[in-house]
Amino acid sequence: MKRFNIVGTDVPRTDAEAKARGTAIYTDDMKLPGMLYGKILRSPLPHALIRNIDISRAASLPGVKCVITGEDTPKIKYGNWRLFPETQDEYPLAVEKVRFIGDEVAAVAAIDNDTAEEALELIKVEYEELPGVFDVDSSILPAAPVIHDYCPSNISVNRKIKYGDIEKGFAEADYVREDTFTMQSVSHAYLEPCSALAQVDLDGRITLWTSTQVPYIIQCLLASTLNMRENDIRVIKPFVGGGFGGKMELRAWEFCAAFIAKKTGRPVKFTLSREEEFLTGRRRHPMKIRSRVGFKKDGTLVAKDLRIQLDGGAYNAMGPTATFLCGNFGAMLYRYPNYRFHGEHIYTNKPPASAMRGFGAPQSLYATEIQMNLAAEELGIDPIDIRLKNAQVSGDKIPDVATISSCGFIESIKAVADMSGWKEKRKNLKPGQGIGIGCYSFISGGVFNWFNTQYPFSAAEVRAFSDGTVHLLTMASDIGQGSDTVLKQILAEELGLNMGDIRITSADTSMTPQADLGSWGSRVTLMAGNAVIDAAKKIKERLFGALSARFNLNVIHEIECKNGRVQAVTRPDYGLTFGEAVALVQKANRGEPLVARGSYTPRGKGLVTPAFGFGAQVAEVEVDRQTGLVEVKQMWTAHDCGTVINPRSVEGQLAGSIQMGLGYALSEQFVMDGGKTLNTSFVDYKMPTAADMPPSQVVHVDTYEPEGPMGAKEAGEGLASPTAPAISDAVYHATGYRCMDLPVTPEKILEGMKKD
Amino acid sequence: MKRFNIVGTDVPRTDAEAKARGTAIYTDDMKLPGMLYGKILRSPLPHALIRNIDISRAASLPGVKCVITGEDTPKIKYGNWRLFPETQDEYPLAVEKVRFIGDEVAAVAAIDNDTAEEALELIKVEYEELPGVFDVDSSILPAAPVIHDYCPSNISVNRKIKYGDIEKGFAEADYVREDTFTMQSVSHAYLEPCSALAQVDLDGRITLWTSTQVPYIIQCLLASTLNMRENDIRVIKPFVGGGFGGKMELRAWEFCAAFIAKKTGRPVKFTLSREEEFLTGRRRHPMKIRSRVGFKKDGTLVAKDLRIQLDGGAYNAMGPTATFLCGNFGAMLYRYPNYRFHGEHIYTNKPPASAMRGFGAPQSLYATEIQMNLAAEELGIDPIDIRLKNAQVSGDKIPDVATISSCGFIESIKAVADMSGWKEKRKNLKPGQGIGIGCYSFISGGVFNWFNTQYPFSAAEVRAFSDGTVHLLTMASDIGQGSDTVLKQILAEELGLNMGDIRITSADTSMTPQADLGSWGSRVTLMAGNAVIDAAKKIKERLFGALSARFNLNVIHEIECKNGRVQAVTRPDYGLTFGEAVALVQKANRGEPLVARGSYTPRGKGLVTPAFGFGAQVAEVEVDRQTGLVEVKQMWTAHDCGTVINPRSVEGQLAGSIQMGLGYALSEQFVMDGGKTLNTSFVDYKMPTAADMPPSQVVHVDTYEPEGPMGAKEAGEGLASPTAPAISDAVYHATGYRCMDLPVTPEKILEGMKKD
Repeated sequence: MKRFNIVGTDVPRTDAEAKARGTAIYTDDMKLPGMLYGKILRSPLPHALIRNIDISRAASLPGVKCVITGEDTPKIKYGNWRLFPETQDEYPLAVEKVRFIGDEVAAVAAIDNDTAEEALELIKVEYEELPGVFDVDSSILPAAPVIHDYCPSNISVNRKIKYGDIEKGFAEADYVREDTFTMQSVSHAYLEPCSALAQVDLDGRITLWTSTQVPYIIQCLLASTLNMRENDIRVIKPFVGGGFGGKMELRAWEFCAAFIAKKTGRPVKFTLSREEEFLTGRRRHPMKIRSRVGFKKDGTLVAKDLRIQLDGGAYNAMGPTATFLCGNFGAMLYRYPNYRFHGEHIYTNKPPASAMRGFGAPQSLYATEIQMNLAAEELGIDPIDIRLKNAQVSGDKIPDVATISSCGFIESIKAVADMSGWKEKRKNLKPGQGIGIGCYSFISGGVFNWFNTQYPFSAAEVRAFSDGTVHLLTMASDIGQGSDTVLKQILAEELGLNMGDIRITSADTSMTPQADLGSWGSRVTLMAGNAVIDAAKKIKERLFGALSARFNLNVIHEIECKNGRVQAVTRPDYGLTFGEAVALVQKANRGEPLVARGSYTPRGKGLVTPAFGFGAQVAEVEVDRQTGLVEVKQMWTAHDCGTVINPRSVEGQLAGSIQMGLGYALSEQFVMDGGKTLNTSFVDYKMPTAADMPPSQVVHVDTYEPEGPMGAKEAGEGLASPTAPAISDAVYHATGYRCMDLPVTPEKILEGMKKD
Repeated sequence: MKRFNIVGTDVPRTDAEAKARGTAIYTDDMKLPGMLYGKILRSPLPHALIRNIDISRAASLPGVKCVITGEDTPKIKYGNWRLFPETQDEYPLAVEKVRFIGDEVAAVAAIDNDTAEEALELIKVEYEELPGVFDVDSSILPAAPVIHDYCPSNISVNRKIKYGDIEKGFAEADYVREDTFTMQSVSHAYLEPCSALAQVDLDGRITLWTSTQVPYIIQCLLASTLNMRENDIRVIKPFVGGGFGGKMELRAWEFCAAFIAKKTGRPVKFTLSREEEFLTGRRRHPMKIRSRVGFKKDGTLVAKDLRIQLDGGAYNAMGPTATFLCGNFGAMLYRYPNYRFHGEHIYTNKPPASAMRGFGAPQSLYATEIQMNLAAEELGIDPIDIRLKNAQVSGDKIPDVATISSCGFIESIKAVADMSGWKEKRKNLKPGQGIGIGCYSFISGGVFNWFNTQYPFSAAEVRAFSDGTVHLLTMASDIGQGSDTVLKQILAEELGLNMGDIRITSADTSMTPQADLGSWGSRVTLMAGNAVIDAAKKIKERLFGALSARFNLNVIHEIECKNGRVQAVTRPDYGLTFGEAVALVQKANRGEPLVARGSYTPRGKGLVTPAFGFGAQVAEVEVDRQTGLVEVKQMWTAHDCGTVINPRSVEGQLAGSIQMGLGYALSEQFVMDGGKTLNTSFVDYKMPTAADMPPSQVVHVDTYEPEGPMGAKEAGEGLASPTAPAISDAVYHATGYRCMDLPVTPEKILEGMKKD
């Protein structure tokens, strides 16, 4: 049965043509009259006290209009975890101390980029170098250098979860194993480097165009660091060339652009170089995961004891959330009757790690999935079967988290097993060939309000016009994932209109309704989608009332918006075009326009997420036993994202996930020398390209999420997790080398094979 | 007693600094990537059939991206009088016929201005010239060439007003006189020439930045001429360098920018040259006014029979409104117990006349005021006294128009008589010196809905934030008159906040609430001001409710917004800061932002205006009896604009009115040779400069208009009328030359003095 008209169809993305033609305007494409170009001076040392900064030569260079250091600023710390202000540990520009190579020390604005760069070289900073720590083990030693005074232990966040009786659980287990996994740091590697442009109006207010996932968060934190009022800041998100979690915090250049614009009265733009992005940018957390699991003989899980240490780098950034979520992801996917988690977020003198697609899941689930395979093998159970036995199902409760509503996990496992010919291949592949499995569960947005917003989590305003068009305003941010298109589809569906009838304005904090927490954690479709539906339903109620009065309908008549009309369901002749019905409402209100606001805030859904996505993935590989090179021959994916709003977009997300998973599994990593990132270009940072992409086959499992808009839930991030364990498992299948320390490099494979 | 805190104070204009510094962005300052430059080919003939247009050579000129003629367009006529579609007589580009020198025939868009200009010369138009008519007397002859087929008489609008018994009135008169007055055409001479920039988005929707007084009207008419839906057009008004009625219609270049942008996919900008503005621009109607008035011996008016012929030029433009208003202005100011009016709007082959500051009043009141002086002299009554005897007062009814509410007319007359030393000077000035009087009444916006909007006449949205700031959104257009400032003042006053707490977004049809009819007819302060108050009152009710609940207030407690607080009037300790109160409302609504919409549509106020402004002006002149040159020595003004919201702005309006009145009286006129405008630059078009401005003294009469926001009414246009009759009367007093045919040129004075 066809449930929907617009939802579920391959509507072209609203931004597709602009991006294909090159007419899309990104922040760095913008130019304002009198605009200055900004550059940031960064610390060359991983840990040092700033003894003195002499800006005099830089400031007197012709063409330089402004030079600032941390001392010139209001020196107010920021961080996304406003609910716990003690976690806010970062200054926009360093004050007294630098904590990683790349820490922002001073900023210059000049009439052109060259002059700004030249000025950077004229700033003289006297440092007193301090010993640094570069891994979690060293950092938590009692004698380790203290990175932040407020935190002598260097452990900034401790997170514990416990339910069931872990001792009793292990006591009941027939089989217990403990493994340690580690994983590397990788880059978001978004194609658009960060860029921010600030302009001050004559009232001293600031407009900031910035490449961000979180306009509202930037507005709030920029205001607090500038010591201004929130609404004296306007943040506009232009086209964004990817974020993946790397653009969800206030950053130094956003502050500097605004601060210098205010100081000079001129527009100021900062755009990062690719080298800056790699050398100093946010990244995925390296983790050290110790996991102890207990099973019954038949493969039934009885207990899990998980310890995760996150290498947070020099500041908290989004590390606290990752620390929380790791523990949640550790208890998702399978049923753990007894569970204990201890997570620690640990400072080191490296560029801060932060949110990145999956938000702790790729690491946590790598451990889960590999360990599941290790156990399956020892218990003599097929990896598929052990998963089916323990898989979460609809109605399962995760203590302190939520009850799982829609769940297509088992269907996903079965589907990939079928598609890939698992049973056959797992037994009969030739040496050097392998097949492996990885699974995931993921959140559809977060519930825990770490940003401490006083607004709804998402909001929408719908304005309906008598010409049959509708204007949708929302602060939700399309960062390339396609949310503008999806929200238009949802609204078109709800109001029985076509895509061409709907205009959207999104992600402008001054014009779109307060608020939206941004694009991260796969929250947008569910949350902004629900807000859109809420507003649309209010519009419909008013249209239905007007129609009912116009045609003197019995109150029991059901009325619908369908095919551009508003009509009684059983008597479509009692109907008007959408535009006529709007005109009628307007007439009944003496001309007032028909406008409604809607919002969504998850309530009664626990503390983690309102809905869970699930999926499974099988990878087939061939490993060159001479070189250790891995070729991924094929990927099979089955996943449950609830209703598929836009199949092509979901497939795009899937392709992107596989590409990132491939890199995470096999080739991507920041190569560090102490605190220094050595690979700072796409030549040295080995990201898979289109040519590396394996053939891929996908099944969308058909579920309907009651909490989601038209049954939809997450489709953007969950799939970032299964690829690495699937490939790693396949490599093991092909070579006997079981990777406990990502990435699975040829060197490790060859080394591992030797050990065999 | 100080009634207000912010209202009534000299708050600096929000746009003052930007304009002073040169940072204000006008339409022509804008530049978009890939933008084309447009130029218009205009008819060199006043009346002709278009036999053929050959664009081939122009189109093949390198750099030319588009050439269009009327035949390429949807050929849909437009005009502001949508209520009577038959009055819509203009095509965006001429179809088959041209009707004045300058009529728009074709348009070119090219990569730069020079190429576009060159292309114009390559377009070959074959005309078949038709005989033209250039004055109203010739145009209404039975054998006159017909300018529009639909209108064989060349009289496009007939407007009649009648009340009382005109025959009986004249029968009762002791003294009757009839005079004929004529007046010239003058230019708005705004400093910013018209400019429009269109951009098409990927959905085929159009954004138009344009120098306009009426974004909403442009949106609607651009949509209809392009055969698009209203809301597929977005009109944004950047800074505007004056309008004065000359920018209140859709114009050819706005259509061409949008049409060509749609056709080429590239942004297109048209900016007029000063020569084009003068040669072809809208202008004030030349009129021929025959007025017959009857008085009792004691100077009491008993009857007036007014006949006005408006020389409309080639198209209706805003002529129908001017025709209507002339008749209304003829019956305002004084009490006419018996009144008859017949107005005719007559086509001629000249550039269309249209709205211009005063909208028919400067002409109509020139006749009224001069004739009053002529009668006073013959009746042996002082001009001041005859005015006081007949002056309208509060409570007077103008049949079919309205009941006059607040009225400070008599106080104004007395004030200028006092200030100027009238009684003394009118008797005792030396030869060559003279003193004269002129008075006015004016509307505060129109009631008659000729545009046939289905929306409120004005609307406002107020968003209040917990940081103590407020965002005001309104489609009202600041075109230099200062409405943004005034609306912010009104809102600050109503909410007890400071100017710095309020941010305004105005005049963007896609973002600000529907609708606002624009800036004309002195409607903005009253109408948009009322809409702002309506929205603010809704905000206050919600704040008061929250406060009442918070402090458990007795329901009889009056609560107020004052000094940034919300508090019980008699117990200010039961109070919160504004921001705290907003936070409380938001909390009570589970996070929903505090937003309210307000609107204003005049109802029960007759068919002309909701409120009347009044005033009187005395001019003192010295005339060089050898050269006929007039020097205005001093102006005294007393006027009633109700509550003065911003004294400095009102004085600015007054200064501008005197400047325009001075030009209208003495020097400005379009010199025509048949249909051709001969003076097409500021060298030949004699506009008074700052150096010509006389010293000026002003009294604001203290009244309170119940229909106005905080008692305010019009202050921008009424004063465009009295200056010319006051100066003309003073010239008569100085020389004995009574000017019945504006302007009062030295030649006419010398000629008139000879006749003495």
